[in-house]
Amino acid sequence: MIATQYKGNKTFSVIEKEIEAPVQGDVRIKVAYSGVCGTDVHIYHGMMDKRVAMPQTIGHEMSGVIDAVGSGVKGFKEGDKVVVRPLDDRKAKPSDKGFNHICEELNFIGIDSPGSMQQYWNVPAFTLHKLKANTDLKLAALIEPLSVATHDVRLSGLQVGETAVVLGGGPIGLLVAMVAKEVGAQVIISEVNPTRIEKAKSMGLEAVSPIDVDLVEYVHSKTEGRLADVVFEVAGVQPTLNIMTEVAGIRGRIVMVAIHGQPKPVNLFKFFWKELKLIGARVYEKEDYEKSIALITANESPFEDMITDVQPLSNIQQVFENIDKNPDGMKVLMDCQL
Amino acid sequence: MIATQYKGNKTFSVIEKEIEAPVQGDVRIKVAYSGVCGTDVHIYHGMMDKRVAMPQTIGHEMSGVIDAVGSGVKGFKEGDKVVVRPLDDRKAKPSDKGFNHICEELNFIGIDSPGSMQQYWNVPAFTLHKLKANTDLKLAALIEPLSVATHDVRLSGLQVGETAVVLGGGPIGLLVAMVAKEVGAQVIISEVNPTRIEKAKSMGLEAVSPIDVDLVEYVHSKTEGRLADVVFEVAGVQPTLNIMTEVAGIRGRIVMVAIHGQPKPVNLFKFFWKELKLIGARVYEKEDYEKSIALITANESPFEDMITDVQPLSNIQQVFENIDKNPDGMKVLMDCQL
Ligand SMILES: NC(=O)c1ccc[n+]([C@@H]2O[C@H](COP(=O)([O-])OP(=O)(O)OC[C@H]3O[C@@H](n4cnc5c(N)ncnc54)[C@H](O)[C@@H]3O)[C@@H](O)[C@H]2O)c1
Ligand SMILES: NC(=O)c1ccc[n+]([C@@H]2O[C@H](COP(=O)([O-])OP(=O)(O)OC[C@H]3O[C@@H](n4cnc5c(N)ncnc54)[C@H](O)[C@@H]3O)[C@@H](O)[C@H]2O)c1
Ligand SMILES: [Zn+2]
Ligand SMILES: [Zn+2]
Repeated sequence: MIATQYKGNKTFSVIEKEIEAPVQGDVRIKVAYSGVCGTDVHIYHGMMDKRVAMPQTIGHEMSGVIDAVGSGVKGFKEGDKVVVRPLDDRKAKPSDKGFNHICEELNFIGIDSPGSMQQYWNVPAFTLHKLKANTDLKLAALIEPLSVATHDVRLSGLQVGETAVVLGGGPIGLLVAMVAKEVGAQVIISEVNPTRIEKAKSMGLEAVSPIDVDLVEYVHSKTEGRLADVVFEVAGVQPTLNIMTEVAGIRGRIVMVAIHGQPKPVNLFKFFWKELKLIGARVYEKEDYEKSIALITANESPFEDMITDVQPLSNIQQVFENIDKNPDGMKVLMDCQL
Repeated sequence: MIATQYKGNKTFSVIEKEIEAPVQGDVRIKVAYSGVCGTDVHIYHGMMDKRVAMPQTIGHEMSGVIDAVGSGVKGFKEGDKVVVRPLDDRKAKPSDKGFNHICEELNFIGIDSPGSMQQYWNVPAFTLHKLKANTDLKLAALIEPLSVATHDVRLSGLQVGETAVVLGGGPIGLLVAMVAKEVGAQVIISEVNPTRIEKAKSMGLEAVSPIDVDLVEYVHSKTEGRLADVVFEVAGVQPTLNIMTEVAGIRGRIVMVAIHGQPKPVNLFKFFWKELKLIGARVYEKEDYEKSIALITANESPFEDMITDVQPLSNIQQVFENIDKNPDGMKVLMDCQL
């Protein structure tokens, strides 16, 4: 089989290795597609070299078919289409209070242990979600990032008829916008990149540039002065932190999806004045995967438009180099059998 | 009757004026006690001269007895002991979404219109809460600040057996701690002022100095590693903003009670990583007053210890000057009939 390995210094290698039998409790998956996440790009840039044990096979957005089943595995068989929820929470402690998806000693599979950017992947059966036999495996590779979005929207408590403002129209922002729209909310994306604004519009989403329009005025006019009931911060920059507390209305909920590496100024007065809520959100729980699988199965949102490129896994080095050259693309999948 | 007036420039005057009959919908209250709030001290310091129409009678923490009832007022009669919930929300709009206690055009009585630091006070009957005939009117003057605390604790969702850390042991912090304790939570106050630490301890509350102990380590050891389920930020300084995200455990809720005039650095990474929630809290709602009245009526917490001085209203100038000289005091009441 072919496997890829991140070796540091912006370099991947493609190696030939033996297919391994799954140990007790594991299954072996023949990986169909593996998507490239912003985190994978961070790893490629060397930003996570302290955490990633090199050489390492990375990747955590995938779809595939079960190829072999280890002893003791119940409920799965060869030929089942599956996706992996890449959270190994076996070291969860009582002090994690049952929030095992973010437990202190979480092992994120594909970062902290080998991931999906290889032809065959052995994983614990408890990470699997089964898909219907007729599921499109390209779309299924979106289930992991889509579950970030279903988690964010669920934690926001967004309701039909409410207005959600999504700050940042990158891959995660667009998925959040689609899930929010499916809830029945009015959804407005704020994005500075004109190509991404056009992309969002082409997908039937409302998107504006905060450079061209006064976002707060715009949302005010679209809500009879209520402003946003929910704001998703999915850009990760100071300007969106500045605007999130302005564009949120009374008792607005702001979901912090973006990862801010440094402490940054936040208008806490507005939190007090309007009784705003800030809700930190990280990855997903089982029910978020189930919701995403239902959405992908129904396929009533423009998920296909998210996939802007499909490349052979053996081209991995070029794939990452191209992402750096073309930051406008949305989701690149690698075909793991090529 | 005697009324006091803030005239700007750290000056109050005491004037003689006519008692007025209550207009339709109003009652006249013979004010018993009027407490001095941190906001009143801010006003005295000239920090709110843009908002306060001078000369102005300020004051919003009070107790009293109904002295005359205007036409159309139902449910209240002369002789009733009452407190005022000083929120005039008659200009609330649909865009306030029913959160009228923080509506955009809220009139805060005692700041934006005349307050309780006078012998007789005319107020709309809809602001009243009736007290039992045997209620201690000194303790009743604590109901307004106590309602800030009952509101904060309610919004936090604090449960029996959880651990709450209160950052700041001033008047509001101590009231929050008492309410949190009454819920059945383990409560730890963090305070830097040794006199205030002693005060808290003398009231049967647990209080530590973050200068003497490593607060995060301390709370860790008191919770089997769970850390705080709820953090109340009631100090309003950068060090408590820095520690709030450290001392909160997984899915911890941080209630922002303090008023931060400027945007300040917040560790948003921790919000993401531990899925923390920040909950802005401002004043109180009807049910918070009802809870406070029940607590004051039951009188099972050391509320009396909160009252560190009682002075005649006619001494108002000296009262405010003394507060500046002695910042360790907790709650100063003015006897409005003296
Ligand atoms: N919470 C989680 O579990 C989780 C999971 C995945 C990703 N993330 C984070 O979510 C964020 C978004 O991920 P992504 O892959 O979509 O990233 P991305 O960088 O592709 O998208 C961010 C978008 O924000 C836009 N932007 C920049 N400045 C802006 C401004 N002032 N106003 C509006 N938009 C602006 C950019 O043009 C870009 O399109 C990142 O911070 C990522 O780390 C979090
Ligand atoms: N949300 C609301 O509706 C509302 C209502 C009333 C008051 N407030 C606000 O609540 C806050 C507290 O009010 P207060 O009257 O008790 O004020 P206060 O200033 O008397 O109390 C603050 C306390 O924090 C302590 N402190 C300072 N640095 C500290 C540190 N590093 N660690 C721990 N403690 C520290 C101070 O020693 C002081 O005792 C203020 O910001 C006030 O404006 C809000
Ligand atoms: Zn990812
Ligand atoms: Zn007050």
